[in-house]
Amino acid sequence: MAPTLVANGGDISAAKPAVTGRIATVYSEVQNSRLDHALPLPAVIKNSFSVIEGPASSAAGNPDEIAKLFPCLFGQPSAVLVPGDGKGLLSGQNLKIGVVLSGGQAPGGHNVISGIYDYLQDRCKGSTLYGFNGGPAGIMKCKYVTLTSEYIYPYRNQGGFDMICSGRDKIESPEQFKQAQETAKKLDLDGLVVIGGDDSNTNACLLAENFRSNNLKTRVIGCPKTIDGDLKCKEVPTSFGFDTACKIYAEMIGNVMTDARSTGKYYHFVRLMGRAASHITLECALQTHPNITLVGEEVASKKETLKNVTDYIADVVCKRGELGYNYGVILVPEGLIDFIPEVQHLIAELNEILASDVVDEGGLWKKKLAPQTLELFELLPPAIQDQLMLERDPHGNVQVAKIETEKMLIQMVETELEQRKQAGLYKGQFKGQSHFFGYEGRCGLPSNFDATYCYALGYGAGALLHSGKTGLISSVGNLAAPVEEWTVGGTALTSLMDVERRHGKFKPVIKKAMVELDGAPFKKFASLREEWARTNCYISPGPIQFVGQGSDKVNHTLLLELGVEI
Amino acid sequence: MAPTLVANGGDISAAKPAVTGRIATVYSEVQNSRLDHALPLPAVIKNSFSVIEGPASSAAGNPDEIAKLFPCLFGQPSAVLVPGDGKGLLSGQNLKIGVVLSGGQAPGGHNVISGIYDYLQDRCKGSTLYGFNGGPAGIMKCKYVTLTSEYIYPYRNQGGFDMICSGRDKIESPEQFKQAQETAKKLDLDGLVVIGGDDSNTNACLLAENFRSNNLKTRVIGCPKTIDGDLKCKEVPTSFGFDTACKIYAEMIGNVMTDARSTGKYYHFVRLMGRAASHITLECALQTHPNITLVGEEVASKKETLKNVTDYIADVVCKRGELGYNYGVILVPEGLIDFIPEVQHLIAELNEILASDVVDEGGLWKKKLAPQTLELFELLPPAIQDQLMLERDPHGNVQVAKIETEKMLIQMVETELEQRKQAGLYKGQFKGQSHFFGYEGRCGLPSNFDATYCYALGYGAGALLHSGKTGLISSVGNLAAPVEEWTVGGTALTSLMDVERRHGKFKPVIKKAMVELDGAPFKKFASLREEWARTNCYISPGPIQFVGQGSDKVNHTLLLELGVEI
Repeated sequence: MAPTLVANGGDISAAKPAVTGRIATVYSEVQNSRLDHALPLPAVIKNSFSVIEGPASSAAGNPDEIAKLFPCLFGQPSAVLVPGDGKGLLSGQNLKIGVVLSGGQAPGGHNVISGIYDYLQDRCKGSTLYGFNGGPAGIMKCKYVTLTSEYIYPYRNQGGFDMICSGRDKIESPEQFKQAQETAKKLDLDGLVVIGGDDSNTNACLLAENFRSNNLKTRVIGCPKTIDGDLKCKEVPTSFGFDTACKIYAEMIGNVMTDARSTGKYYHFVRLMGRAASHITLECALQTHPNITLVGEEVASKKETLKNVTDYIADVVCKRGELGYNYGVILVPEGLIDFIPEVQHLIAELNEILASDVVDEGGLWKKKLAPQTLELFELLPPAIQDQLMLERDPHGNVQVAKIETEKMLIQMVETELEQRKQAGLYKGQFKGQSHFFGYEGRCGLPSNFDATYCYALGYGAGALLHSGKTGLISSVGNLAAPVEEWTVGGTALTSLMDVERRHGKFKPVIKKAMVELDGAPFKKFASLREEWARTNCYISPGPIQFVGQGSDKVNHTLLLELGVEI
Repeated sequence: MAPTLVANGGDISAAKPAVTGRIATVYSEVQNSRLDHALPLPAVIKNSFSVIEGPASSAAGNPDEIAKLFPCLFGQPSAVLVPGDGKGLLSGQNLKIGVVLSGGQAPGGHNVISGIYDYLQDRCKGSTLYGFNGGPAGIMKCKYVTLTSEYIYPYRNQGGFDMICSGRDKIESPEQFKQAQETAKKLDLDGLVVIGGDDSNTNACLLAENFRSNNLKTRVIGCPKTIDGDLKCKEVPTSFGFDTACKIYAEMIGNVMTDARSTGKYYHFVRLMGRAASHITLECALQTHPNITLVGEEVASKKETLKNVTDYIADVVCKRGELGYNYGVILVPEGLIDFIPEVQHLIAELNEILASDVVDEGGLWKKKLAPQTLELFELLPPAIQDQLMLERDPHGNVQVAKIETEKMLIQMVETELEQRKQAGLYKGQFKGQSHFFGYEGRCGLPSNFDATYCYALGYGAGALLHSGKTGLISSVGNLAAPVEEWTVGGTALTSLMDVERRHGKFKPVIKKAMVELDGAPFKKFASLREEWARTNCYISPGPIQFVGQGSDKVNHTLLLELGVEI
């Protein structure tokens, strides 16, 4: 790299090992400034501690089935770190630990790894940390790298998962479990930390059970990762990455709001990542106060049709038109149409028909749709009809995530308003502008909250393995308090589980945490949305700051769920 | 607003006057922290100064025609502020000044207004500043607000143009000039500051000429605004807003790069705002080091076809595939297809045909296209063909800005790679992911550079009016030095002008500054792009910081143009 480039940042190539082209040799000033950012630790883990056990646990649902699926692990108590003299810790042992990143990126993953590494350095000098490359496939193929201080340093407080990369493979078949066992034996692993979402943590627990039942010494600890925010429970108050991703999206939304108000002539329809649950959309709404926010869980609970949703938007646009506002900002969760029953029916019928039949240009194939479904199909804008027909996955199924819901809504609202205009019910101007914010948020530099939270999760995971635990998810709590007072421990993964019936068998699942309509974040939103619809109470959160005012803010969802009035 | 919301920021409603619903009553912490951010001023304007004149000026081209068009103003010298005892300043006078925002938003507009206001407060106590509402239409209709300290305060260092809003109307016809004169007389205006881009500054000069030739005392000063970065010259080194907008886009690009590298399976095609010139794309490339960057001016100068561009991208994808990289990031300027001659021909022919003819479903209309044009049309993906046919402005012309160039390129590259694969020339995997970054950047909180630069531009504009100048554009220079050492003055707007022949008449225009292929920014980029294509030297600039490391960085384009090696 030419030295002339270095002025853009500092050349840290000296500190970075050469990993086949995956590592930038030049950092921006902000990236550089984050490298040496000191992370506070909860007091309990900074000092000498003991690990104690809570009461026995059960399951989120169907405990009998979960007990059958996890005979070794079911019922395990939670683990809590308390000030003490090291009771519960394995003594005189150098540990060999592996770590793996599983699934989509979330800001903070690198800090979890740093936390594990630093725990081992601080408390089990002489231990080894292996990073499996490319997700669970790295475990199965025994592809790994030995992590050192020099290796880890350039990734401290940095976004992305590129230190060891991630993957979406699953350890599922008996053969795959066998491969994992072989790797565990080959590396003489004492423990494995799986950093992932609901699916990955379910698999982590299956792996823990498998290792235990096969008398392997390798213990498995999970860590809660997903920007979607849908992996959480009482003991695991939030998944990492949610805070940063929402702040990045909220910055963009705030800018678009200022633009809308300055220009006065566009309705911005912003689709936000998060297909299964609408936490991101709700959090961004709480941060920015848009005129309309669609929450999938509410749409589903009210059994709304696409026409209902369109009418709701059109009603607000009309009302605002009367007040003289021909502009606005509307937030739409990526998974909206997954929550609309009639759209689900349409997609199911389409999957059925298109898998077996040829689609004729004349449209005769449409006769195979149920009458109501056909009516809905004909209601859709042609571009969306095309997406439904053309964007199919290798199994021939409609790819819902590729459907540009925001553009669909713009066209449907346009049509509705045109009709109202002709009926003399609407006099304003409507111009829609579509946006999708997704990839921009998954790999940003972690916010101070995520950086600190992840480091504590990793450090805590180290302590759990050091105390011989398995099948737990690293749990850091009391997050509304100063970091000093955060709690550290682990929660039985089986206690988060329920079963689902798949192919005639019970499968364990960690149920996704959906937006609860009687939860504090939604209720707060619901109490204010009418005002937000009528007036323009936009808030512009601005770019994430790492020092100074606003830099230690925590997302609203978490605070409200913890009972903090904001 | 419920007081419970205030924890999200500070309630500054007390400081904010009630302006029909356009003002948020609650600010985020970061917005709040910016309100009282102290702005440094260049030393020359902080202390007592005199205004001296430079040599007489000419025009950027066709000086004889410009002289005819601006008989009062042509040849004016530039004005320079130097330390002194007030020589050149009008004395004993309270000024009545108007200010107007013209055209699209750019971060920093509010600070220009604050600068003018503070100048008047500091140096011409008792003066009045009027803000015309909604752009030039506000001048013509005499719609204005009297700006006070309380009115301005909530907008200090904030993004957007919502203090007085902007508009795209032009003062062009004799009737419109008459209306402007009436407003100037009614308000007894001593001066008017026009904050706008190339067109708006041309109009500002026409207005200055009109007022002067009609013996009105109202003087007119322009200010260089546009995120596109295409209004600049030796004396006006950059237009405001470019710095902030590019930093916002570069933050997003850097995040997408980290995502690409972590996932290892997508080519991200990022279209960036900026239709006429590719400055934004080039600057973002210098900040982030993408694998491929298309610069419209280069494509035009090489007379490239769409096939050439497609092949270039496919070549890099193939080369990277051989190196084991099936991912990458590609920057595309919004106006790319405006730079491809054959696409211009296609659009011209389509405009011609579609204006008069009915388009038959059978496609007979296509026979009216020239053979080469038809060949190009058939080469385009169907979705783009549709956009060309359907997205038309009220005059029936193709709306080039609405064409999703990034999606078009993805599909064309996909087709090309498929052919190479079949010929055994490509073995990799190609998955494209499209992005458009535009509206997010126009209204962000201004960077420290833009905040300071704009304040100096406004403060300087105040000084120019105070010294009786007209037809100048506020010029702040020596920007690579500390703010203390920046120069302040004004440049004759006529010296920036050339003429264009329109409807048989000469029209004055400030020529857009295009990316110069022998300029330092492009040469720097060109010297590095091969390395960027092959390797992954991505840089992630991270979110704009307002304090601490990286907060006072200036964009690369400006520094390179000022001869600073970076």
